Amino acid sequence: MFITLEGMDGSGKTTVIQRLKKDLEAQGYSVVLTREPGGLEICEKIRSILLDKDDNKIESWTEALLFIAARKEHLEKLIKPELEKGNIVISDRFLDSTSAYQGGARNLGVERIQSLQEEILGNCLPNLTLYFKLSFEEAEKRISKRLEDKNRLDEETQLFKEKVKEAFEKIVIQNPERVKVVDASLDENGVYESSIKIIREELSKWKK
Amino acid sequence: MFITLEGMDGSGKTTVIQRLKKDLEAQGYSVVLTREPGGLEICEKIRSILLDKDDNKIESWTEALLFIAARKEHLEKLIKPELEKGNIVISDRFLDSTSAYQGGARNLGVERIQSLQEEILGNCLPNLTLYFKLSFEEAEKRISKRLEDKNRLDEETQLFKEKVKEAFEKIVIQNPERVKVVDASLDENGVYESSIKIIREELSKWKK
Repeated sequence: MFITLEGMDGSGKTTVIQRLKKDLEAQGYSVVLTREPGGLEICEKIRSILLDKDDNKIESWTEALLFIAARKEHLEKLIKPELEKGNIVISDRFLDSTSAYQGGARNLGVERIQSLQEEILGNCLPNLTLYFKLSFEEAEKRISKRLEDKNRLDEETQLFKEKVKEAFEKIVIQNPERVKVVDASLDENGVYESSIKIIREELSKWKK
Repeated sequence: MFITLEGMDGSGKTTVIQRLKKDLEAQGYSVVLTREPGGLEICEKIRSILLDKDDNKIESWTEALLFIAARKEHLEKLIKPELEKGNIVISDRFLDSTSAYQGGARNLGVERIQSLQEEILGNCLPNLTLYFKLSFEEAEKRISKRLEDKNRLDEETQLFKEKVKEAFEKIVIQNPERVKVVDASLDENGVYESSIKIIREELSKWKK
């Protein structure tokens, strides 16, 4: 099973992912964690171009294509082989991030980026996506606590982040089977419990 | 005016481009030379990922998207501003290379890559493209003379290169107004004379 976590920075995805792995492994599953952009040497090289703070005037299409290029490599060389071994793969961000950030907030068009990705990535979409829903204000509050970890995308304006949120919520509505909402305004434990409950339900369907 | 030179490695593009600049400048034009992939810092970083000899199993779509990502940046940040200043820009490779190499030889589809590029690059296609036509055997003979300069794409098979040639020739037929053929089997001087003749004709149309 291929699971992706999506949401704005500060929504708690990265905190919850390690606990998900531990819990699922305790239940006997074999779990591989990965993240985007990254996960492979070439993807890390692309990541370093994308997150370079000094180069903050990169074209929106350049940004989108770099993310999708790295994703194709990540999917074919890491995610698919792990799924074929029978492992659960959980990725911190995947295709919906590019649809929301570049499609929505950068105005390339959510549907345009979705259809381009579906063409390029082929028939390997996530089985389950958890969208960590959080208000802009709450996300900002959390991010400001970890100043040293700021990168280019953290420094975007409020308008940009509101467009990201709007795009994510559009994706949720368009994909009710695949994308489930987690209330990320809960405390760490609450977010974790909501997440594992949704994953367990999905796994129980798979076993049948 | 925006001019691009296309053709297989070994077809003499790089040799001729410096002479074209000198000759056009002697006629009073201001000429900017550039190349793909490359031309800007971010594009050079992408180039180094693409031409890395150790990473020769990169996905075809990853390869295509990296080329187009670099091209968008190159077009918006270097080529368009130079054209707006009234300069002639000559680029060693541009969009037709991705259509031929990734679209044709890597089987992603020449038309598919063309339409994707037209969407992303917008309304700034080259005014004139010189296609340096050369037989596979002759190109190989020339490349083998500069062994030290070999990169990943030079090491492809004959079948791959024949597909590249076939795709380029399709592009020539599809775009008779924009793409003109130079017989690259001529000696250096012959190739140069054919090239400058075509460019002068095009420039004379522009002056009218």
